Amino acid sequence: MKLWDKGYSVNEKIVQFTVGKDRELDYYIAKYDILASDAHAKMLKKVGLLSAEEQQQLSEGLGELLHQVEQGTFIIEEEFEDVHSKIELYLTDKYGDAGKKIHTARSRNDQVLVAIQLFFKDYLKDTHKKVVELIEILLQKAQQHKDDIFPGYTHFQAAMPSSFGLWFSAYAEILTTDLFNFESAYLTADQNPLGSGAGYGSSFPIDREFTTKELNFSQMLVSSVSAQILRGKTEKSIANAISSVASTLSKMSYDLVMYNSQDLNFVSLPKELTTGSSIMPHKKNPDVFELARAHCNKIQSVPNELVIVSNNLPSGYHRDFQILKEVLFEPMMQFHTILDILTFAIPHIEVKKESINQAKYNPIYTVENINQMIQQGAPFRDAYKEVGISVDKGTYIPNKEFKTSHIGSIHNIGLEKIQEKLETTKNRFNSL
Amino acid sequence: MKLWDKGYSVNEKIVQFTVGKDRELDYYIAKYDILASDAHAKMLKKVGLLSAEEQQQLSEGLGELLHQVEQGTFIIEEEFEDVHSKIELYLTDKYGDAGKKIHTARSRNDQVLVAIQLFFKDYLKDTHKKVVELIEILLQKAQQHKDDIFPGYTHFQAAMPSSFGLWFSAYAEILTTDLFNFESAYLTADQNPLGSGAGYGSSFPIDREFTTKELNFSQMLVSSVSAQILRGKTEKSIANAISSVASTLSKMSYDLVMYNSQDLNFVSLPKELTTGSSIMPHKKNPDVFELARAHCNKIQSVPNELVIVSNNLPSGYHRDFQILKEVLFEPMMQFHTILDILTFAIPHIEVKKESINQAKYNPIYTVENINQMIQQGAPFRDAYKEVGISVDKGTYIPNKEFKTSHIGSIHNIGLEKIQEKLETTKNRFNSL
Amino acid sequence: MKLWDKGYSVNEKIVQFTVGKDRELDYYIAKYDILASDAHAKMLKKVGLLSAEEQQQLSEGLGELLHQVEQGTFIIEEEFEDVHSKIELYLTDKYGDAGKKIHTARSRNDQVLVAIQLFFKDYLKDTHKKVVELIEILLQKAQQHKDDIFPGYTHFQAAMPSSFGLWFSAYAEILTTDLFNFESAYLTADQNPLGSGAGYGSSFPIDREFTTKELNFSQMLVSSVSAQILRGKTEKSIANAISSVASTLSKMSYDLVMYNSQDLNFVSLPKELTTGSSIMPHKKNPDVFELARAHCNKIQSVPNELVIVSNNLPSGYHRDFQILKEVLFEPMMQFHTILDILTFAIPHIEVKKESINQAKYNPIYTVENINQMIQQGAPFRDAYKEVGISVDKGTYIPNKEFKTSHIGSIHNIGLEKIQEKLETTKNRFNSL
Amino acid sequence: MKLWDKGYSVNEKIVQFTVGKDRELDYYIAKYDILASDAHAKMLKKVGLLSAEEQQQLSEGLGELLHQVEQGTFIIEEEFEDVHSKIELYLTDKYGDAGKKIHTARSRNDQVLVAIQLFFKDYLKDTHKKVVELIEILLQKAQQHKDDIFPGYTHFQAAMPSSFGLWFSAYAEILTTDLFNFESAYLTADQNPLGSGAGYGSSFPIDREFTTKELNFSQMLVSSVSAQILRGKTEKSIANAISSVASTLSKMSYDLVMYNSQDLNFVSLPKELTTGSSIMPHKKNPDVFELARAHCNKIQSVPNELVIVSNNLPSGYHRDFQILKEVLFEPMMQFHTILDILTFAIPHIEVKKESINQAKYNPIYTVENINQMIQQGAPFRDAYKEVGISVDKGTYIPNKEFKTSHIGSIHNIGLEKIQEKLETTKNRFNSL
Repeated sequence: MKLWDKGYSVNEKIVQFTVGKDRELDYYIAKYDILASDAHAKMLKKVGLLSAEEQQQLSEGLGELLHQVEQGTFIIEEEFEDVHSKIELYLTDKYGDAGKKIHTARSRNDQVLVAIQLFFKDYLKDTHKKVVELIEILLQKAQQHKDDIFPGYTHFQAAMPSSFGLWFSAYAEILTTDLFNFESAYLTADQNPLGSGAGYGSSFPIDREFTTKELNFSQMLVSSVSAQILRGKTEKSIANAISSVASTLSKMSYDLVMYNSQDLNFVSLPKELTTGSSIMPHKKNPDVFELARAHCNKIQSVPNELVIVSNNLPSGYHRDFQILKEVLFEPMMQFHTILDILTFAIPHIEVKKESINQAKYNPIYTVENINQMIQQGAPFRDAYKEVGISVDKGTYIPNKEFKTSHIGSIHNIGLEKIQEKLETTKNRFNSL
Repeated sequence: MKLWDKGYSVNEKIVQFTVGKDRELDYYIAKYDILASDAHAKMLKKVGLLSAEEQQQLSEGLGELLHQVEQGTFIIEEEFEDVHSKIELYLTDKYGDAGKKIHTARSRNDQVLVAIQLFFKDYLKDTHKKVVELIEILLQKAQQHKDDIFPGYTHFQAAMPSSFGLWFSAYAEILTTDLFNFESAYLTADQNPLGSGAGYGSSFPIDREFTTKELNFSQMLVSSVSAQILRGKTEKSIANAISSVASTLSKMSYDLVMYNSQDLNFVSLPKELTTGSSIMPHKKNPDVFELARAHCNKIQSVPNELVIVSNNLPSGYHRDFQILKEVLFEPMMQFHTILDILTFAIPHIEVKKESINQAKYNPIYTVENINQMIQQGAPFRDAYKEVGISVDKGTYIPNKEFKTSHIGSIHNIGLEKIQEKLETTKNRFNSL
Repeated sequence: MKLWDKGYSVNEKIVQFTVGKDRELDYYIAKYDILASDAHAKMLKKVGLLSAEEQQQLSEGLGELLHQVEQGTFIIEEEFEDVHSKIELYLTDKYGDAGKKIHTARSRNDQVLVAIQLFFKDYLKDTHKKVVELIEILLQKAQQHKDDIFPGYTHFQAAMPSSFGLWFSAYAEILTTDLFNFESAYLTADQNPLGSGAGYGSSFPIDREFTTKELNFSQMLVSSVSAQILRGKTEKSIANAISSVASTLSKMSYDLVMYNSQDLNFVSLPKELTTGSSIMPHKKNPDVFELARAHCNKIQSVPNELVIVSNNLPSGYHRDFQILKEVLFEPMMQFHTILDILTFAIPHIEVKKESINQAKYNPIYTVENINQMIQQGAPFRDAYKEVGISVDKGTYIPNKEFKTSHIGSIHNIGLEKIQEKLETTKNRFNSL
Repeated sequence: MKLWDKGYSVNEKIVQFTVGKDRELDYYIAKYDILASDAHAKMLKKVGLLSAEEQQQLSEGLGELLHQVEQGTFIIEEEFEDVHSKIELYLTDKYGDAGKKIHTARSRNDQVLVAIQLFFKDYLKDTHKKVVELIEILLQKAQQHKDDIFPGYTHFQAAMPSSFGLWFSAYAEILTTDLFNFESAYLTADQNPLGSGAGYGSSFPIDREFTTKELNFSQMLVSSVSAQILRGKTEKSIANAISSVASTLSKMSYDLVMYNSQDLNFVSLPKELTTGSSIMPHKKNPDVFELARAHCNKIQSVPNELVIVSNNLPSGYHRDFQILKEVLFEPMMQFHTILDILTFAIPHIEVKKESINQAKYNPIYTVENINQMIQQGAPFRDAYKEVGISVDKGTYIPNKEFKTSHIGSIHNIGLEKIQEKLETTKNRFNSL
């Protein structure tokens, strides 16, 4: 069933091809199309384009559909090309002319756009919360392991003493930094395109301030022409926000995969969280972190995919935009799966405290030897040379008794400052 | 000249390969390395690691170098592998041991990072200003051409009446939306990594709050381990911010290239802004907008390039990070060139007011016919069918006398609301 | 059911996460895993690791599974983590120890790899055929419309006379050029990894030349270590091959979308192949070509996605490779849908022969005026200036009577040479 | 100096912006523009558009320019916008009207295209040779270290015995596989676009078969319209070819960086090939391989960059294509630098033979224990369980005395088969 039926039928192959994955993907936005339709109906009544009775009927019908969505019983049957047709036909079947009037002063273009903006706003809020939850787990682990020293690496080589307190808190801090991108994404999504019609407005005396307020948008997307130029942009800012987090989680997973090897052996996983090999019985593979990494990497390719699909199209609507849903929606959902599995797995990580004591790690204390010499008056460059020569000659004795004091160092990891950064970041986001 | 000379010489081919483009690219960060070095020296004095006299010498020497940078006379000679070696050697040559001590309690790793963060902060401020300038030009053009009607397109087809008021103001509004990304980028860059050393801090009693304040950072990057995890991330958020603007400018340029064709003929450029063909004397090609588009597209590939170079590396410093400079710095500069050329060219665009009156554009008024019928009581779907049939039969008469009233429509483009959005956006950025 | 069961059970969340989409995606490779298992069993018998009876049982069981696949009745039940577990358990249930022995001298790693290589080889052959079919349709259209002149564009501007003969045959020729990439992809896929085990071979006296011949591979992937390094590479070469075709089809679709507009109006589509607008009754939108374009563009992002997922992993197997299936398999199938819809739609394109005669296209003949002057003795640069001035002054008279003779020009489009190129290309591929 | 001067001057800012990096990048194609111009002149004489004397003058002038290029004295002065203007003006200055006539029957569009195709053909040949040279070094190292056992990894964990014979030969084999992509790239580049003019041919009676033969192209790009559709495609196939090699070299470098760490310690580099740390005197960092990896990764982003710049443009020339030169040419050159540095560094790699003997690597022999049990009659799955339990219980005794026999395994690495694959690959490429 199509909204634009004109009395000739479109070839069935073309119909199937153009519908594509719409029916499947539109479940994500069904709720928001219903809410936006309801706000639109109320506005139409306010400006006199619907009678009070008509509006009430529509609101009732939309309420029923919303209930179905919440109960999980809402279905877009095969005869509908998308959620928008389904909803309109439901109303028309039930209320006749009143149902037909819901489409007054709007186009499927702004209908899709407003539903997507609302969907994204909710998604960003939910996801922000999930990331914060993971950050808090990392901060707890940092506190718990703040005195567990292990080698810090540069160039893949054990370089200097580090600690799990620093390591866990660093990922907490960087994830907090990643959340900055949720703010720009939210600001982008929090603009109301409803009323822009097919991208050029209409001559109906609609009240766009009313629907903006009714739908809890902070502001309107003013120019009708802006609405279709924004298409792809909100998508990209969502994709950037989750990619940013994903890139941090990918790196954390990479660390954990390596730390779990026989060679580094800094952490272990309970065997229930590992998987085996079909031919090597000794293997307890950290597949959960390998797959978390891989999925996080896949997500990092989404912004580029959105660029390629939406780039080099002049202003105005193009059917190409339909594809943006299938590029972005599935990774958005997949990202929640990753957050959930890591939130589940991270608390199970066991830190192996003795690994640091192997002889191969002795040279990581050279910096401490040098610092000791400097604090006894030697210029840095001279101390550096002398210690370097002792390592080369094999006469080097590590200085394992050192004490750091600055914020962000082994003996002063500054958790409270990171916690504070997290609070500020949460508050700034929540106040948008 | 290398900072880490240990008494053996590295193979010349390896030296050349590892130095790469550093000498060339480090000019961008020279100023910031000098400023950060000066703050570091002041801090070292404060905590007793430098004498007052030593610090004064260093500040004097750094002042001289800063003056050279400002005069354009600062040079990184061939014997230095990068700007950091150059600066340190300058100080050592001049002040002996005091010069050597500048490297106390820092590593080249945090030295590079802090300079880059400072460079990015300045760049974001400058670029934000340039984008705002362009937005203001677009708003002026929108005002100037607010009554110039031309067809709005969907699916590449003339669809409905639009106006240059809507068109120019839409690009102004969307560029404003793009600026949201400058906020998250700025928040990311505005964290001080100085003191993180090689990525694991040090046992020197340094005062990181002091340098944070001295260098005008809003906050510290707390965990030393965070510093190297952030590498690539600030770069990506800069790249995303400028890519976002670039994608809008690419689309605007695409429109202009098409609008300038014989077929659409909605705008023209003074011939001084066009280029010719080597074989077709009638051509006045809009190369400036084609190249602006192409450069903007190239910039949109930079975030992905940064992902590919920095992804799947565990935590800690890797020499791979050096390449991030050559991936990002040139496009950053190129982006200013694009902003400048568009700021120069846009005011010259001439709008051709008569194009709308061609017969081929008559059907774009069908929506107005339908709206008229609805306002006379017909349900939308019935009016839609009737008008559709009249077009097919060739009996259609366009309703060119229509009047829109809602915000964001032809006769009420809502410039003051876009101006207001711009002001809020500027203020929010400036208050970061 | 897992192949590596060791007596402890893995956490259910981890199981679900690690299984991911395997069950769903493995249907694509079921056939090939069965064929490779059969070849492996025959080889095991040949070298004495299976008895003749055991091998016959296994071949019989595998034959039953192959029949199920061909009938569409093959199912991977929920209790299996992938197709490999399913097949092995089927054999074990049926034949006891003989079933268990199928896994002798192989690992799930080389089992997956060999099935994928075989799948890709078949896919490349099928797809090559489909592309050739489309090319032939384009060549027919070129022949049919060889005398239909329309403007050729440069810089989006009507520039010179062109023809639909040139246009259709150009896409035929470039698609032929795209097929070159199928050759390198096929060469890459046509290497047998079976026997490489987990990536380091085994001490079983297996006969890799036997399985290579049995499975119709042209050559072996020799070093066992090569097998896991190749992972991601065959995928990339498939993705490059189809992306190359996709980029051509995207451009062709772009042309058609534009040519179908009121402004250019060079082609039309029967209305059964267009879709409508929910608010504009006059619209007959070329969604089929817009969506073909968008899907083709999405496919062009796949090679990059494969890079991001597989890059910066050292040699050896990583679980990340599992994700490559979900990155590539769906686009591979989608690509067939695109080829099918275009093969269906292209023959319906109607060429509008009169469009060329509009006054706005007169200047495209300037080159012909110049050529005429040159052939009468004028140097090119002088003729160029004179004609240019006449256009500017409005005194220009187009020379519509021109005759081209060189291969690849309007009056000699050289179809037989393109047909010959296609034949050579087909033969080269078929002889691989 | 522009080729299309029409008597008005273009704004200086626009000129600078549109010239861009042309002068700089055109040095790469100068030689090929000269050769193609000479072939064009000869053809013009053949068909009677140039007199014998004129053609001889032009050939003489072009010979002088070619000599300059070969001597490194060829310069594109600031007054020229590109190499094509420079060459034409040189001829015009020297020979007057004859010089002007060189542009008869061609456009700057096909002039650029033919020069680029020729440049790419030479580049592919040179690069193929360089890759083969590196492969041969790897084969020598494989032979030299064929008995040096070290652990093979899966999931980043030591898994099974491997050898440097397998490892070096695997990279040799996979690089050979990468070379397959050079064939499709060469086939793509080896098509002559000269004569396609601005993309629509001309009415001059030119002989395209003559120039095709004269310039050693195997075939013609037949349809004039094909020429501009091919733009970006040859570029992508070059980029894919070198990216394919780059991805292998990136992985090899990744391995080497890890193998060089204290934790794995499988290889070492002479200190002359390492670099140091500014604060850690014990560090001998493998920067050369980290940078090789990073540059190889950067190269892998080039195909995507080419997609973004060239995608979604309809057929015909666009000025955007100019940017393709700056996207591709520098990475092409950088790629040679990487090949050169690796060809220099690889022979210096020292293998540490004793690393395998550490206790932590004992479990990598479990597969051998299992195989032994199987060869004594146990079904695989039972042996697997028993050995797995012994590892868990700590009663496991490794079976270090094993002997492999199959091709591609430790004791039969099959170098001669890889060598044969290389020969076939070289021959197939050279016969194109």
